[in-house]
Amino acid sequence: MQVMQQSVSAQRIAQRIEELAACSTTVRGVTRLSFTKESETANELVSQWMREAGMIVRRDELGNLIGRYEGTQPDAPALLIGSHLDSVVEAGKYDGILGVLSGIEVVQTLHEHQYRPRHPIEVIGFCDEEGTRFHTTLLGSKALSGDLRAEDLQAKDEQGITVAAAMQELGLEPSRYHLAARDPKTILGYIELHIEQGPVLEQEMQACGAVSGIAGAARYHFRVEGNAGHAGTVPISMRKDALVGTSEMILAMEKAAQKYQNLVVTVGKLSVAPGASNVIPGVVEGTLDIRHIEDQTKKMALADILEECRRILARRGLVGEFSQIMDSPAVACSQRFINEIETVLAESGMKPIQIVSGAGHDAMAVASITDIGMIFVRCRDGVSHHPDEFVTVADMQAGASVLLNVVLRLT
Amino acid sequence: MQVMQQSVSAQRIAQRIEELAACSTTVRGVTRLSFTKESETANELVSQWMREAGMIVRRDELGNLIGRYEGTQPDAPALLIGSHLDSVVEAGKYDGILGVLSGIEVVQTLHEHQYRPRHPIEVIGFCDEEGTRFHTTLLGSKALSGDLRAEDLQAKDEQGITVAAAMQELGLEPSRYHLAARDPKTILGYIELHIEQGPVLEQEMQACGAVSGIAGAARYHFRVEGNAGHAGTVPISMRKDALVGTSEMILAMEKAAQKYQNLVVTVGKLSVAPGASNVIPGVVEGTLDIRHIEDQTKKMALADILEECRRILARRGLVGEFSQIMDSPAVACSQRFINEIETVLAESGMKPIQIVSGAGHDAMAVASITDIGMIFVRCRDGVSHHPDEFVTVADMQAGASVLLNVVLRLT
Repeated sequence: MQVMQQSVSAQRIAQRIEELAACSTTVRGVTRLSFTKESETANELVSQWMREAGMIVRRDELGNLIGRYEGTQPDAPALLIGSHLDSVVEAGKYDGILGVLSGIEVVQTLHEHQYRPRHPIEVIGFCDEEGTRFHTTLLGSKALSGDLRAEDLQAKDEQGITVAAAMQELGLEPSRYHLAARDPKTILGYIELHIEQGPVLEQEMQACGAVSGIAGAARYHFRVEGNAGHAGTVPISMRKDALVGTSEMILAMEKAAQKYQNLVVTVGKLSVAPGASNVIPGVVEGTLDIRHIEDQTKKMALADILEECRRILARRGLVGEFSQIMDSPAVACSQRFINEIETVLAESGMKPIQIVSGAGHDAMAVASITDIGMIFVRCRDGVSHHPDEFVTVADMQAGASVLLNVVLRLT
Repeated sequence: MQVMQQSVSAQRIAQRIEELAACSTTVRGVTRLSFTKESETANELVSQWMREAGMIVRRDELGNLIGRYEGTQPDAPALLIGSHLDSVVEAGKYDGILGVLSGIEVVQTLHEHQYRPRHPIEVIGFCDEEGTRFHTTLLGSKALSGDLRAEDLQAKDEQGITVAAAMQELGLEPSRYHLAARDPKTILGYIELHIEQGPVLEQEMQACGAVSGIAGAARYHFRVEGNAGHAGTVPISMRKDALVGTSEMILAMEKAAQKYQNLVVTVGKLSVAPGASNVIPGVVEGTLDIRHIEDQTKKMALADILEECRRILARRGLVGEFSQIMDSPAVACSQRFINEIETVLAESGMKPIQIVSGAGHDAMAVASITDIGMIFVRCRDGVSHHPDEFVTVADMQAGASVLLNVVLRLT
């Protein structure tokens, strides 16, 4: 076992990361949207590496890439290791990719040591997690869990091309999407390794940690309407300035986030109209994103925030409107998987850090049909979805080693 | 005198306003930028009306339109009545125009009654006050006051066309701009009638008021830099959210404005980057506009605001930068002119309301060579720079009558 751990090759992972990063439409960062020429090139590379690792490769009906490494007991349920191959615009090189390549590396290590576990192992590269192209997320993992609906394939990209049309373009038959759904009986569980995309591991000065669960997230669009007017002629006492009102709301949201532990609230988008230096803002539109690992806490905090916003709006004579865009419940990782990961961390001399994932992952979708476990790997400054995203080779080594040992314990 | 007052025809003004409003590149609102085909058409109409009113019309070296109605003593200094003929984008029909047309109406009334004052009267339609096209304001009135500099004519529009080139296009020789400057000895004073562009007269339920002065204005561009990050993964306590920090600054600005009487502070433009619903804002840029009738108060308030912003930024670990775009001192109206206007208001049964103009006007530039006086006319809801800008015919009648009587008293 010790021999295998050392032969996990982070250098090989790092090299493959560079090769995949080249499959991009932009020079700055990685831009590899789903069902594109670039994603096809990436798929070919990953298929080839899966085969090198001793896996039989297939593409499921939605275009997810699946490499299977048979176990000694071929009809035993398979352990799935997955993450995604698509990216946001001008993304980093590690998001998603590190999980897929670490999975392949683990299998390749077993293969090179001619070790065959009892349970089959499947490594999955999901085709669409980010939803950047079609403004819908987790297409690939939802197809696998059977949660994809026919209408999801009608979502359109900026050019008006539907998911279905994009699939056909690549030779996939969209009407067969439901055949990508897996029978839960054939699955032992799902493990995903992913970069943290946050600063906790860096602050804890540790390469890896276990994920306790994925926070539920709700997203709202809001619109605040006041009165536009000349910046010089309307006395402060007579103004209904939509931006000043929104500013007070944003501070109230921060205050709520401080009140509830682990709650995060973000106003990430904001536009001000008419938007001239000498005109009082008449309309402000923005987004509110709120996340917590406990759905009940998220709900309470949201009610608090909306109530406080209503008070602010009423006091200022502004009209506000909040409309929900999205609400996804929290997903817990399997306690058994968390325990296994923590045992491996301890064996490697690491602390048992448990992190709540504030970001969504393919594991969220897969959780509806099987137990999930997640391993986070430290990334520099917590930066992700940005060309500056960075993971050291040493941390990749640590991550793949932990994954290998968890896989050995589970299979 | 009473006869003349009643024969000021607001109907004629209203009709001419509609004709001028048609000189626009947009169907929604009036868009008539300086030195364009539309402004030339407007100039032709106004020239014709000036001639109908018994004036001799010329165009000065910068393109300002000047109609002169001789007095009984032709070498006496002339009373100037002016405002501007250009507009912002999708503007209202009254801003600027009402002042020029009321001036013409006053002279036409004198002319129709074959009344000739001792002092000559000149009605001026300034060619560029808004600065919409070249991002510079008061070009026309600065040329008249001798404050225009050669480099001002090198300002460019969005297409890269300079003021000088645009002038040449219309047959004006830019190098002769300095000849538009007037000898102060030839001027008795300057009177401008303008819509209020604010809500005070409406609240006071009165058609007209006197302007006590034009507030000084300073404008800043600011930039707040924090750390962008994933909206789900960075705990609130570890964030450096540029938008939350800016929100606190905006509320501090409002507080300062409430502390100093008659101070107005506006953040009219704001942009948030990267600007995605699931990303913590890393950079916010915006504008700060601050105005007060006393330059010293404006300066003190600004120092207060900048000090408080620095405190907020430091506490939040954000980096902020304020750069001054503009600083124009306050301009007082002549006490003699204010007295004359208030006497006429009283004679017409109106209260002696004095309003500080928070907006800039051509009178600001002309003030450097002569006494200025301004009459404000009520506009609906205080709305201006918008297609909804509206003045009733009754209020136009009241405004032109007050102007007529002030002119009679002064000439």
